[in-house]
Amino acid sequence: MSVARKIKSSISKSSMIRKMFEEGAVMKKKYGADKVFDFSLGNPNIEPPDEFKKELINLAAEIIPLKHGYTPVAGFTQTRQAIAEKINKAHGLKLDLDHVIMSCGAAGALNVIFKSLLDPEDEVIVPTPYFVEYPFYVDNYRGVVKFVKTNADFSLDIKAIAAAIGDNTKAVLINSPNNPTGKVYSQQNIDDLARLLTEKGKELNKTIYLVSDEPYVEIVYDGITVPSILKAYKNSIVAYSYSKTLSLPGERIGYIAVNPEIEHGTDLLNALVLCTRILGFVNAPALMQRIVAKLQDAAVDVKVYQKKRDILCEGLAKAGYKFEKPQGAFYLFVQSPIPDDVEFVKMLLKKNILVVPGSGFGGPGYFRIAFCVDDATITNSLPGFAEAINECR
Amino acid sequence: MSVARKIKSSISKSSMIRKMFEEGAVMKKKYGADKVFDFSLGNPNIEPPDEFKKELINLAAEIIPLKHGYTPVAGFTQTRQAIAEKINKAHGLKLDLDHVIMSCGAAGALNVIFKSLLDPEDEVIVPTPYFVEYPFYVDNYRGVVKFVKTNADFSLDIKAIAAAIGDNTKAVLINSPNNPTGKVYSQQNIDDLARLLTEKGKELNKTIYLVSDEPYVEIVYDGITVPSILKAYKNSIVAYSYSKTLSLPGERIGYIAVNPEIEHGTDLLNALVLCTRILGFVNAPALMQRIVAKLQDAAVDVKVYQKKRDILCEGLAKAGYKFEKPQGAFYLFVQSPIPDDVEFVKMLLKKNILVVPGSGFGGPGYFRIAFCVDDATITNSLPGFAEAINECR
Repeated sequence: MSVARKIKSSISKSSMIRKMFEEGAVMKKKYGADKVFDFSLGNPNIEPPDEFKKELINLAAEIIPLKHGYTPVAGFTQTRQAIAEKINKAHGLKLDLDHVIMSCGAAGALNVIFKSLLDPEDEVIVPTPYFVEYPFYVDNYRGVVKFVKTNADFSLDIKAIAAAIGDNTKAVLINSPNNPTGKVYSQQNIDDLARLLTEKGKELNKTIYLVSDEPYVEIVYDGITVPSILKAYKNSIVAYSYSKTLSLPGERIGYIAVNPEIEHGTDLLNALVLCTRILGFVNAPALMQRIVAKLQDAAVDVKVYQKKRDILCEGLAKAGYKFEKPQGAFYLFVQSPIPDDVEFVKMLLKKNILVVPGSGFGGPGYFRIAFCVDDATITNSLPGFAEAINECR
Repeated sequence: MSVARKIKSSISKSSMIRKMFEEGAVMKKKYGADKVFDFSLGNPNIEPPDEFKKELINLAAEIIPLKHGYTPVAGFTQTRQAIAEKINKAHGLKLDLDHVIMSCGAAGALNVIFKSLLDPEDEVIVPTPYFVEYPFYVDNYRGVVKFVKTNADFSLDIKAIAAAIGDNTKAVLINSPNNPTGKVYSQQNIDDLARLLTEKGKELNKTIYLVSDEPYVEIVYDGITVPSILKAYKNSIVAYSYSKTLSLPGERIGYIAVNPEIEHGTDLLNALVLCTRILGFVNAPALMQRIVAKLQDAAVDVKVYQKKRDILCEGLAKAGYKFEKPQGAFYLFVQSPIPDDVEFVKMLLKKNILVVPGSGFGGPGYFRIAFCVDDATITNSLPGFAEAINECR
């Protein structure tokens, strides 16, 4: 055998999103890019805010000794301080800079968190549908994912989570606003979860961590606010990314924020720093650390995404599609008009429309539309969507 | 138990380098930074070359659609193409862009390589002394490190490596120019290793990969050239970083280069891309990928490091220290005048000199000096070094 057996098996399964993306590249060559409606990837099409561009230009010219040198493993103190202050101000919490560890995006953050937490066979509860990479992030550290269905409106099913918790449960992993559903868990839903984890922790005499993946926390619509996980539950850890807030997913900058009251806090903070180092991240990119320190209040204009959502939702509803209107993120999770979502996705492909089957997210019978694309792509795709659903009748 | 057991145990052992660094911070506060001679960390003190600064300023201002968006997992094609061409031109090889995968520095590259290669219990042979993080990088993927001593001049002991190879051997990991010794393996030494791995591979009917960690490959002195590992051995994989060549270790940019003739090549390339994604790196920082594409011929002025080496070597030789003069990198690995290197490091501490005990690198009886510091730090430390060795007599 050449490469690791587990990796070889994962390659052959590969990501459905990636397959769609490759299919799209072939189609774009064949038909022309404007004739292909590619909703497969969550690669934001909005430019970073002007403040970011300005800071980058300033910083590029600024003379700072060893500007591009190693940073402390956990990140620059001024960056971590700025983040702690922002969180404290927004939610009335008491983080200090030690509770913030800079990371290479939320993906890097989640890997560092799970390497820090998981012993072999430890279980992580993941509500479905879920972001496709989660099972890898848990399996990387020999953890076991326990999937739990959400309610019909994609809210957390507290009873189902309760039933899934056992002696091996180490953490629950949530993602709100959610990829792929756009769901934002309500304050009530989060409070119920927090109460459950507190009770179960006492009952089982162990700490159950709540890991919250929050790259979309500032991409929300209709004036909604996202409940603070750090405020709701003591044993909480947040993985954050600037990828969507500042539209710079390629630059790999985010952070881990740890509740100051968390159990085994000192061990955990030390573990997060050690794992950042030994996993090879070493430190989050230095230049981006310097920039985000100054951009705690900057964000892309979410109204641009909201408009896209509205055009899409209106068009699809008119065509007869059924879905929960997303409250955040830039994904719409639509019911497939036929039970086999993979089959329906192939029908859409014939209309030059690329979406991802819900099966890839643990949500069979649905498909995901990533609407972080040009308005024209959305508008021009609507006739194809309508034709496809009509062909199912 | 709170955090993972293995991580908790690693925290308590912690890195000797880091301990020295922390000790140094305390001492600098107490005595003033100019009174403390800190040789503990390999954080280059040379600024990036002017070409880098110019490119960064240009790129910051340039308008490119989705400039900071996700890149392909393996990296931008133009960057990978530029790197493949540079390697081909330098060594007469035939890499194409698919043989190059961008990474978050060499540390990220090595993690991706070992996750791609290692099944549980697979062995990786590591010559001693070694870079302190290697055992973590192998253990992260349940591999087992087999340490093999080098010769007295720190060249590879081919017979010792031969004796260490067995049914479980998956790879040999080398690092030339070496941290902590500054050794550059000769062409003869590399050719002997390549012959051995080819023979052993046939004998055991398996592929033994040669993984070459090369962040210092362009930091060499006295006009020496570093033999090309890709040219010397078919089953070779290079982990490269721009951290030292361009003096930007905080920006986390490097690459993996794979020999085009490597066995199981398609599986391996797919595995490297998959592992880049699922380990959470996702892609190497986009901005830096764009910059290094244009800077394939840029490098810091190594004469600056060479001068530091010469001042240091001359001063220490005069004081009576014994060492192999480094041919590359910016480390000097010095024999401790007393057998207990940790004890001698403590003696140097009393002279306000911070170095790292060789024991931390699997090289007891030595200590490491990282001479990527101001010339004045070196010069002003020499009396302290002399006093310490005299006290041992």
